[in-house]
Amino acid sequence: MKNTFGSHVSVTLFGESHGPSIGVVIDGLAPGLPVDEVFISAMLARRRPGGQISTSRQEPDPFVIESGVFNGYTTGTPVCIRIPNSDTRSKDYAATRWLARPSHADYTANCKYRGYEDYRGGGHFSGRITAALVAAGGLVLPALKRKGVHLATHISRLGGVDDRPFDRLEADFAALADSSFPVLDSTAAEKMTACILAAKQNGDSVGGVLETAVTGLEAGLGEPWFDTVEGLLSHALFSIPAIKGVEFGAGFRLADMYGSVANDPFRMADNGVTTVTNNSGGINGGITNGMPLLFRCAVRPTPTIAREQESINMQTGTDATLQSTGRHDPCIVHRAAVVVDSVTALTLCDMLAWRHGTDWLGEA
Amino acid sequence: MKNTFGSHVSVTLFGESHGPSIGVVIDGLAPGLPVDEVFISAMLARRRPGGQISTSRQEPDPFVIESGVFNGYTTGTPVCIRIPNSDTRSKDYAATRWLARPSHADYTANCKYRGYEDYRGGGHFSGRITAALVAAGGLVLPALKRKGVHLATHISRLGGVDDRPFDRLEADFAALADSSFPVLDSTAAEKMTACILAAKQNGDSVGGVLETAVTGLEAGLGEPWFDTVEGLLSHALFSIPAIKGVEFGAGFRLADMYGSVANDPFRMADNGVTTVTNNSGGINGGITNGMPLLFRCAVRPTPTIAREQESINMQTGTDATLQSTGRHDPCIVHRAAVVVDSVTALTLCDMLAWRHGTDWLGEA
Amino acid sequence: MKNTFGSHVSVTLFGESHGPSIGVVIDGLAPGLPVDEVFISAMLARRRPGGQISTSRQEPDPFVIESGVFNGYTTGTPVCIRIPNSDTRSKDYAATRWLARPSHADYTANCKYRGYEDYRGGGHFSGRITAALVAAGGLVLPALKRKGVHLATHISRLGGVDDRPFDRLEADFAALADSSFPVLDSTAAEKMTACILAAKQNGDSVGGVLETAVTGLEAGLGEPWFDTVEGLLSHALFSIPAIKGVEFGAGFRLADMYGSVANDPFRMADNGVTTVTNNSGGINGGITNGMPLLFRCAVRPTPTIAREQESINMQTGTDATLQSTGRHDPCIVHRAAVVVDSVTALTLCDMLAWRHGTDWLGEA
Amino acid sequence: MKNTFGSHVSVTLFGESHGPSIGVVIDGLAPGLPVDEVFISAMLARRRPGGQISTSRQEPDPFVIESGVFNGYTTGTPVCIRIPNSDTRSKDYAATRWLARPSHADYTANCKYRGYEDYRGGGHFSGRITAALVAAGGLVLPALKRKGVHLATHISRLGGVDDRPFDRLEADFAALADSSFPVLDSTAAEKMTACILAAKQNGDSVGGVLETAVTGLEAGLGEPWFDTVEGLLSHALFSIPAIKGVEFGAGFRLADMYGSVANDPFRMADNGVTTVTNNSGGINGGITNGMPLLFRCAVRPTPTIAREQESINMQTGTDATLQSTGRHDPCIVHRAAVVVDSVTALTLCDMLAWRHGTDWLGEA
Repeated sequence: MKNTFGSHVSVTLFGESHGPSIGVVIDGLAPGLPVDEVFISAMLARRRPGGQISTSRQEPDPFVIESGVFNGYTTGTPVCIRIPNSDTRSKDYAATRWLARPSHADYTANCKYRGYEDYRGGGHFSGRITAALVAAGGLVLPALKRKGVHLATHISRLGGVDDRPFDRLEADFAALADSSFPVLDSTAAEKMTACILAAKQNGDSVGGVLETAVTGLEAGLGEPWFDTVEGLLSHALFSIPAIKGVEFGAGFRLADMYGSVANDPFRMADNGVTTVTNNSGGINGGITNGMPLLFRCAVRPTPTIAREQESINMQTGTDATLQSTGRHDPCIVHRAAVVVDSVTALTLCDMLAWRHGTDWLGEA
Repeated sequence: MKNTFGSHVSVTLFGESHGPSIGVVIDGLAPGLPVDEVFISAMLARRRPGGQISTSRQEPDPFVIESGVFNGYTTGTPVCIRIPNSDTRSKDYAATRWLARPSHADYTANCKYRGYEDYRGGGHFSGRITAALVAAGGLVLPALKRKGVHLATHISRLGGVDDRPFDRLEADFAALADSSFPVLDSTAAEKMTACILAAKQNGDSVGGVLETAVTGLEAGLGEPWFDTVEGLLSHALFSIPAIKGVEFGAGFRLADMYGSVANDPFRMADNGVTTVTNNSGGINGGITNGMPLLFRCAVRPTPTIAREQESINMQTGTDATLQSTGRHDPCIVHRAAVVVDSVTALTLCDMLAWRHGTDWLGEA
Repeated sequence: MKNTFGSHVSVTLFGESHGPSIGVVIDGLAPGLPVDEVFISAMLARRRPGGQISTSRQEPDPFVIESGVFNGYTTGTPVCIRIPNSDTRSKDYAATRWLARPSHADYTANCKYRGYEDYRGGGHFSGRITAALVAAGGLVLPALKRKGVHLATHISRLGGVDDRPFDRLEADFAALADSSFPVLDSTAAEKMTACILAAKQNGDSVGGVLETAVTGLEAGLGEPWFDTVEGLLSHALFSIPAIKGVEFGAGFRLADMYGSVANDPFRMADNGVTTVTNNSGGINGGITNGMPLLFRCAVRPTPTIAREQESINMQTGTDATLQSTGRHDPCIVHRAAVVVDSVTALTLCDMLAWRHGTDWLGEA
Repeated sequence: MKNTFGSHVSVTLFGESHGPSIGVVIDGLAPGLPVDEVFISAMLARRRPGGQISTSRQEPDPFVIESGVFNGYTTGTPVCIRIPNSDTRSKDYAATRWLARPSHADYTANCKYRGYEDYRGGGHFSGRITAALVAAGGLVLPALKRKGVHLATHISRLGGVDDRPFDRLEADFAALADSSFPVLDSTAAEKMTACILAAKQNGDSVGGVLETAVTGLEAGLGEPWFDTVEGLLSHALFSIPAIKGVEFGAGFRLADMYGSVANDPFRMADNGVTTVTNNSGGINGGITNGMPLLFRCAVRPTPTIAREQESINMQTGTDATLQSTGRHDPCIVHRAAVVVDSVTALTLCDMLAWRHGTDWLGEA
């Protein structure tokens, strides 16, 4: 029960929002993966707040690779990536130290850590920690690509506005690459942005749904019980703050289908076995079937909002009124997309290393 | 990446549908838990197929506790519960050995295990393995109850018919106890049963949504990253065959809410801290907040249906037509409820033992 | 902190000496390993007490493979092997329930399990549980052999009598195969047997040292920190009851050497890199170097002896005199050799699967 | 199979000798442990080379606590301690990049990491990484002391010279505290120092034996199988470079004893259950019995020596002669003592947290 994930390739997070630095240790990576620091920076830029639709906290996320990389390649020993904190305005938070923000982790952290938690800016619960996840994702995504595994996430829905579904995946992936507001239909993107700005105006926040597709995955990954592909991915994805639901393939819509409609008939195609539909999201019996992996994550609206809210004072044990003054995002759905990509990539590396051994990912 | 789940209290499953027996080893349980074999039998009875709405395979699930129990109490050493297989008609399956049932694990098992898999009746992928999970659940549920932790699952939706939501949890839990078709609104239950029978008539199957509530859980369980309550529970729940989506609290509905609506304001009540609403499902920042835990699982319609289906022959690599002749369920939603209860109970025991140590669950 | 060992190939033990059965679940084995039940029986026969030098408890160890094997091959799903208990004379133990045998686990079990432990015949601490380990070893040893990995254990020292050291490993392994009293020098074997019989006569017991060699292991297995080859093997080996010391290569003798003598110079040979000496036991920096793996285990004399001993009554908290009446071994060194072989084989399978992936061990 | 150790309290190491920094992440620590940076510095000073008997590499080991500590106390979230590298003379190593030092990890690293390893100064295999372990030890040792658990390590033997055995542990622990050459008998210390200097003069190195005692441990820690106290401790201890043997209690000497002598009779004493002798080293059946924990580690002579040695060139695959020019220690036995203390302390914290839960260690 730990801040670590993964059996073969494992990821350990550390750091607090207003401590010296945050970071990640990735162990079990194959030796010989080329490390592209420019790509990692680009990944971090996609997560970084920017423009009117985000918090005004601005950090360029300069990262330091402390270990496990030598002459531009992974060595096979643990990689530590550290991101120093700089733009920390701790005094923003002191005044509200004992006020539990509704639906935020202030109260639960206080219960769990008995008052010893670093409360400033959410401490270890801060969304800022996801920058370390994204740096780790930036390390492994190119390795997956070299193995023919491609993935992307778009905003499927935000503030009641739907993006179009994935269609031709190759083209869609190209369109989403490097986007910091990843939407397939540009009209939808405009409407979504308007929603976010309206919410901001109202001192409020909005949520949405992220949809992810992965192509090029072999059939046969995952286990029948417990370490199913759905189980492993959802376990990792629910770490991303604000995610409150995960569904694979047609997901909750399957509950209303007849079996004869939901079932994905197998057919032989030129490139081998395929299925006519993909309501299963590329997973049967917990194991990949070679079709694109498809899943969707529900992202709740950011709990920290500018509006006055009712809450409690944890020190006095009395009701209180809370007016947040720190910086915060009216929406984190778009920023979470690259985090989902990263978490997905790390989980897939773990599954692939499990199946093919330590060196496979680094082999030509 | 294993058929084992849990850090402190761990559960390992073994067995194939048509092998000598299936079973489970539970390690890390506190010594001194009273073992109620009648209760375990009653739990197994709720999972067992019965009546017209289920498969005609009939097994009384007699179980043998092979280890870890002495004089009616757990000893603290690993508990192995074994359920011998008896009503196995293996020849039902031989004829269709190479035909991959759509959306079933036949094809993925063949990819993963390279033809060595025991294909009879789904082998290790069979829903029958969940009987071992339920036996394990029957072992720990009474221990949780003695600690004030209560839980139940109802069919929230089936074949387009909605049950009423949970209301007064204590009364609802009592109403659901021991039910093999757990629905709160009896009119809804009748309509759902009719749906199942209609599907059966058509050689088809139906899915649904299960909703679970847990009361009496302390605040402070779970970890900020990776081993969040959502992450741990979903990891375990996705093991249950046919579950394709898991959401906590308002789940996917949160995606359409404003933060000011979604947020659950804290308030002081007679019994301590409470929240006015519970859209977060009792979890903030991955950690329990003392409110009821609430989550919903999407259950896909059973993939094995009586109707003729298009598929492939895995041996010849050609398209084929499949006519299933084995026994199968037109719906497993109702039977899955007690499996969800069991998986939830085991996961909670793990979290509680992690927090309070080895002996806590067995202490008065 | 569990009764499970192994990351990729994992082994879970269950059972009590006088419960219904003992057993083991092995998860993570490659599909396609041929299962030789005759060989497993032969392995069990080597562990089984026999003749005058052992306990008079006689059980043929009939085992049941409950899962994970189909048509003579492993399926890749968890293998459960169960060994029913039959020759259990529980009443032998009731009279001494509260008397803590010196250096046995009676007292520590009582502290840990707070009186709920199954005390009969040592319960879960019984050496009988090692039969399950040996059955698991019998499952994987042939697979290692097919990959060119051979291993054997001899009694290096017993009751002050030394066997000759390993010399030509191939011939020595052949000589030790199937032996239930594995000694290389037959004169030493006679003297050792005489020691055991003398100890038995005196109501006493003797210990010894086991030495193991493994050939055919590739260079590059193990990790620099924590999961070193020495760390993994010793972790597993110390599970074997009575083992109180483990040393690799020259072990404790290295403490008295100069570096210039202890160092093993590398040299090129016809078949690649070799070392002139092997004081490191085939491991440098925690990682195999391709030379034979060599280690020695100190086996304490069996704590249960026929002689009267001073001890305590755990119920009354008073001093007491203990006269053991159950069956017991005057020496278990020879019986432990096949357990060491099994534990070593299982640990090596784990390391190899980690490095080469899930299927490697089953591939031709 | 990882550079991580521990179930409940887990320790992850990262870093290379000549990379930007080395460090450790400790997860699972209780919130509320006071952090004494002066004590951590003092621990690091004991490991640091100094005087004539060590390498001339001089680093003050300034460490940075990057996370998990707030206002002087642990928060309960992962603690990252980082130690920047400064005194790195990388060019010392470039000339010998392809020469495999006998009994060092150069060759095995090259096999495992396929040439991608950071070879400078031993890279991730460098003894310098143990500084991170010691910093972690310095974090938890005071917490153990507050719980009444005390421990110390002395040089039991070095270069053929024996220290006196532990006698009155309280006084011996006090004498050893803060010593950078921890020996109980000052005459023995002088002789040992002379041995080291003589070896240095000869371009050679010496080994020895470290003996550790732990008092104040409760009975009942450890598991019967696999996670025995011996198994867990040896697993961790064998990580310390140069340790090639671990024995508990009388260890290898038990092999020559009769059971009637080796057995430790239980007796009632004023403070509860005790044993007359302690040949078992405080462990019966893998579980602590409340007596002092006693174990000994064999430390091989440092493999890197100044003398010319025969070896191979890994690039050309030919025999070669090696003349080491880097800095190195003629003996690391004394420096390893505080590393053994640290590894022991961390392993005990893990066992105690497992048994008593997350918060116990931080409670008054």
